[in-house]
Amino acid sequence: MSKERQILDAARRVFRDKGYYAASMQEIAHAVGLQKGSLYYYISGKQELLFRIFDEAIGSMIAQLESIRAMAVSPGERLRRAITAHTVAIADHPDTLGIVLRETRVLSPSQRDRIDDQRRHYERLLESILIEGIKAGQFREMDPRLITYALLGMTNWVHRWYNPSGRLSAEEIAAIFSDVLLHGITAEGEAANS
Amino acid sequence: MSKERQILDAARRVFRDKGYYAASMQEIAHAVGLQKGSLYYYISGKQELLFRIFDEAIGSMIAQLESIRAMAVSPGERLRRAITAHTVAIADHPDTLGIVLRETRVLSPSQRDRIDDQRRHYERLLESILIEGIKAGQFREMDPRLITYALLGMTNWVHRWYNPSGRLSAEEIAAIFSDVLLHGITAEGEAANS
Repeated sequence: MSKERQILDAARRVFRDKGYYAASMQEIAHAVGLQKGSLYYYISGKQELLFRIFDEAIGSMIAQLESIRAMAVSPGERLRRAITAHTVAIADHPDTLGIVLRETRVLSPSQRDRIDDQRRHYERLLESILIEGIKAGQFREMDPRLITYALLGMTNWVHRWYNPSGRLSAEEIAAIFSDVLLHGITAEGEAANS
Repeated sequence: MSKERQILDAARRVFRDKGYYAASMQEIAHAVGLQKGSLYYYISGKQELLFRIFDEAIGSMIAQLESIRAMAVSPGERLRRAITAHTVAIADHPDTLGIVLRETRVLSPSQRDRIDDQRRHYERLLESILIEGIKAGQFREMDPRLITYALLGMTNWVHRWYNPSGRLSAEEIAAIFSDVLLHGITAEGEAANS
């Protein structure tokens, strides 16, 4: 594993355990067996680490959503899998995603533009699953953009209240959300569970 | 109107127009015809203003929700009105609510405790509308706490994307959200529009 890879993984752990603001470059350097000074050979600072972690996280969320979208299953099943993947991603990285969702000011303007582009791309992919379900007649005629926002709101909000040692796992939460949303958008006479 | 009332109203406008961080006590003083020094006779600073505005906003949201809960209409209709009231509140005060939703660190620990108590009270009220609908058989058997969080996520997220000059008003957004959520939770054989 490259030093850079090790640094990113260590930073993700330190951010998760301490929070972005409390985390120090010193701790991250220590976790990968480097002096703080040497760490700056690989990375310009905490902000760049956060940006790279988030860019990587959203990149893998996009790849996952693209593969879900291409699956030979019903639009309803695609949506269910998309909701699960998103909820699990939020629950697994509440701190990193929480910070970027809350305060994009942490990022530089060009970093923010890049993340905004990625976010829009992700939103359009989600929306396209809804549009395909409407076209196929499985979902009701409705505003796909607005349902996308409803879905993102429901699932992103998870970072505010999810407790890893609570009574429900991320998958169980996603199952309940999917159930409600699919019942909510499924066309008359179609089964919400197909 | 008391001076304090004028100050709170002016602060709300300045926060909305400039954002909390960019707003200055100078501007707020100017808006009510006071010297900046005299303003401190009424209020300790920007943080107290934000706390008082938020405390007042959530207080009136609670009062509104309590009156909706007491209405002699079906649980579904109560939920529809609750979703509308919440969405309109978020859309009308995106900046103030946005800041408190995003960064409770702006508040002091005792202010945060007070807001958290109010927020929990509001959440329990919403949840009680769901519980009553389940008991009445209008809503399906489901986890009312989780549906409350889903509803809050959908509607709170509005502050991130709502555009007052966009194609949909807060009421229209609320109508679509209510429609999806009510279809999603209404028991088999019950009408989602009653």
